[in-house]
Amino acid sequence: MPEIISLNKQQLEKEYENYKLSGRKLDMSRGKPSAAQLDNLSGLLTQLTKNSDCFAEDGTDCRNYGCIDGITEAKRFFAKILDVEEEDVVVCGNSSLNVMFDVISNAFAFGVRGCLPWSKQGGLKFLCPSPGYDRHFAITELFGFKNIPVPMKSDGPDMDVVRKYIENDPAVKGIWCVPKYSNPTGITFSDKIVKEFAELKPAARDFIVMWDNAYAVHDFSPSSGTLASALKEAKKQNSGDMFFVFSSTSKITWPGGGISCVAASAENIKWFLKILSIRTIGYDKLAMLRHARFLNSHLNSVMEEHAKIVKEKFYLCYEYFEKLKREVAGFEFSRPNGGYFISVNVPAGRAKKVVNLASEAGLKLTPAGATFPGGQDPEDKNIRIAPTYPTLAELEDALKLFSICVKLA
Amino acid sequence: MPEIISLNKQQLEKEYENYKLSGRKLDMSRGKPSAAQLDNLSGLLTQLTKNSDCFAEDGTDCRNYGCIDGITEAKRFFAKILDVEEEDVVVCGNSSLNVMFDVISNAFAFGVRGCLPWSKQGGLKFLCPSPGYDRHFAITELFGFKNIPVPMKSDGPDMDVVRKYIENDPAVKGIWCVPKYSNPTGITFSDKIVKEFAELKPAARDFIVMWDNAYAVHDFSPSSGTLASALKEAKKQNSGDMFFVFSSTSKITWPGGGISCVAASAENIKWFLKILSIRTIGYDKLAMLRHARFLNSHLNSVMEEHAKIVKEKFYLCYEYFEKLKREVAGFEFSRPNGGYFISVNVPAGRAKKVVNLASEAGLKLTPAGATFPGGQDPEDKNIRIAPTYPTLAELEDALKLFSICVKLA
Repeated sequence: MPEIISLNKQQLEKEYENYKLSGRKLDMSRGKPSAAQLDNLSGLLTQLTKNSDCFAEDGTDCRNYGCIDGITEAKRFFAKILDVEEEDVVVCGNSSLNVMFDVISNAFAFGVRGCLPWSKQGGLKFLCPSPGYDRHFAITELFGFKNIPVPMKSDGPDMDVVRKYIENDPAVKGIWCVPKYSNPTGITFSDKIVKEFAELKPAARDFIVMWDNAYAVHDFSPSSGTLASALKEAKKQNSGDMFFVFSSTSKITWPGGGISCVAASAENIKWFLKILSIRTIGYDKLAMLRHARFLNSHLNSVMEEHAKIVKEKFYLCYEYFEKLKREVAGFEFSRPNGGYFISVNVPAGRAKKVVNLASEAGLKLTPAGATFPGGQDPEDKNIRIAPTYPTLAELEDALKLFSICVKLA
Repeated sequence: MPEIISLNKQQLEKEYENYKLSGRKLDMSRGKPSAAQLDNLSGLLTQLTKNSDCFAEDGTDCRNYGCIDGITEAKRFFAKILDVEEEDVVVCGNSSLNVMFDVISNAFAFGVRGCLPWSKQGGLKFLCPSPGYDRHFAITELFGFKNIPVPMKSDGPDMDVVRKYIENDPAVKGIWCVPKYSNPTGITFSDKIVKEFAELKPAARDFIVMWDNAYAVHDFSPSSGTLASALKEAKKQNSGDMFFVFSSTSKITWPGGGISCVAASAENIKWFLKILSIRTIGYDKLAMLRHARFLNSHLNSVMEEHAKIVKEKFYLCYEYFEKLKREVAGFEFSRPNGGYFISVNVPAGRAKKVVNLASEAGLKLTPAGATFPGGQDPEDKNIRIAPTYPTLAELEDALKLFSICVKLA
């Protein structure tokens, strides 16, 4: 129980000093699965142990070159979890972030949707629903875009603001989205918002939606989240060429040791493959086969095991955050039913201070501001909480310290 | 025995028709290992079968995120085969071609060696020792470079031509090299040539040497090839920042299922990692661990097994090509002691015809001209022979047909 909350200032300071002196090393900074989650995946290690195991269902020898767009069973896996057609999927390497980088980089160097390369256009802008994912924003920042924050609401980005920008300004080339269990707020875009995305009428002919569906199957219970298929909806509206959909197994199996994909319209897949076939002879088909074999039969049980472990940690957070909310005016938090993150708002002007206090006492948090473009939270209040990596005992320790820091700040 | 050679024109035409009617499907087009080679690698499949197998020697959990530059034991592997320092190595994903593309792409978008991005410079040129590797040339072509052919000699590129271009023209930004068992001629750069590379004084401050050491350990016998370390030589000459060295396990273990690397100066590694850390959270460390464990103890035996299989095929080619050389004026061929390719020159103006004849009778060869920039062989005489993929029986069949086509053309 979070009894720490009821301490007075002097007691809080003493507790804080005790933490500092204890030399703890706690980490709630990144969305990493815990060792317990990874230990549930040993079945994946033994999918391919003999040479005869290494052939895909169509006979492709996955040990050799070839198959630029990925093997069929891996396409089927991603098509199913993303609710898209198999032929819209290209299966890629161990990192979907890498594929997103490539899409931006390809559009920059060679142009997308038949338009002039972005490198030859000036004043580039990209929309960043915020709070959002710092690594997304870092990519467009690197390529010289002005990242423009767009407010996030409980059912998705503020679409009036989105439309205002993209319908009037041809320099706005795209928007970053994590449409399900959004990083960090945990909200899932409503069907209405997905439909409004498909109906967008951008001023730029080369406008693209970077739809990072990283948490497609990361529900705490089978009923907790549903997301409409943006690509299907867009095809209905004749706007399919606007969407690049991404996903990976990074938080299903091994982060950095799995497979990823991009799904898009036939035109966009053709564009992507044309450049990809000069970039590489193909991605790792043995990784694809290992994952497809394991996940096409074990996905549900794996995600149920994950949910059991992750949910308990989220609920422990909610318990502490409820108390903080009652005692600290202006303290708010999101309460997702899946995903990897909780978004916390401390009183305005206090987020940096909380993160610094925590850091000095041995608790690493995502830097304050990281969830906004350029690392600049205009109100200095948002903090992303990533509770999955620590054990439950470490998490409780971290939450106590976090609560002390919030109250002290 | 290649008795086919002594047939007269009418007999040749009849034999050719027989091939055509038989509906054969033979392939000597790409440098792919054979099934027999891949079957020797089953030990690699069982390196990691339990969760406790998945930790690197420094304790890193290879199942989770982190370690952007690769695990120590994989760096050690590449440092050893490339004769460079461990700290100069970044271990990457399943494709070194991908890493080469990224170096070019990064220099294009962000600039390399502190210079203006190539995308903001005009009239870009790249040197292409020819005959050379078509996939290299395709990358610089895609980025809008004018690919300039440079003649290949028996000990490396014609360095007088290289110097003439790069010392006088700041638009010449780099050169492609396969310095050992060069694709396709099979020659290895002499120590003198490597030293001359290190001593180059390019007009462009952002000139780079793309040193693709793909066949570093692919010798038919332990004594057959040695290549000086370009990076070490360059460091002596203070020109280390000019070199990007690449390699992979694609032709050691599984093509497309292995690991790759880039090795470079401290400055260049810093530059590469800065962009890489925005591109991805890290490459596949389980693939690294699997390979490092297996190869740090089995490299020699694996390469001896490969050599036994590959050498027999090369020598069968030499047997046929010797006969052709005696009977067809202008027929020439290289005789490498390792690697994956043999370079053949047919009489000038006949390469396209040979490749077409072969294709119509069921033998796929690398397109004539592919070994030159833009697919344009000025003398239409060079053909790349890739004898590794077919079985020995299929290869003999293919060589008979190839001989018929050369004589008919």
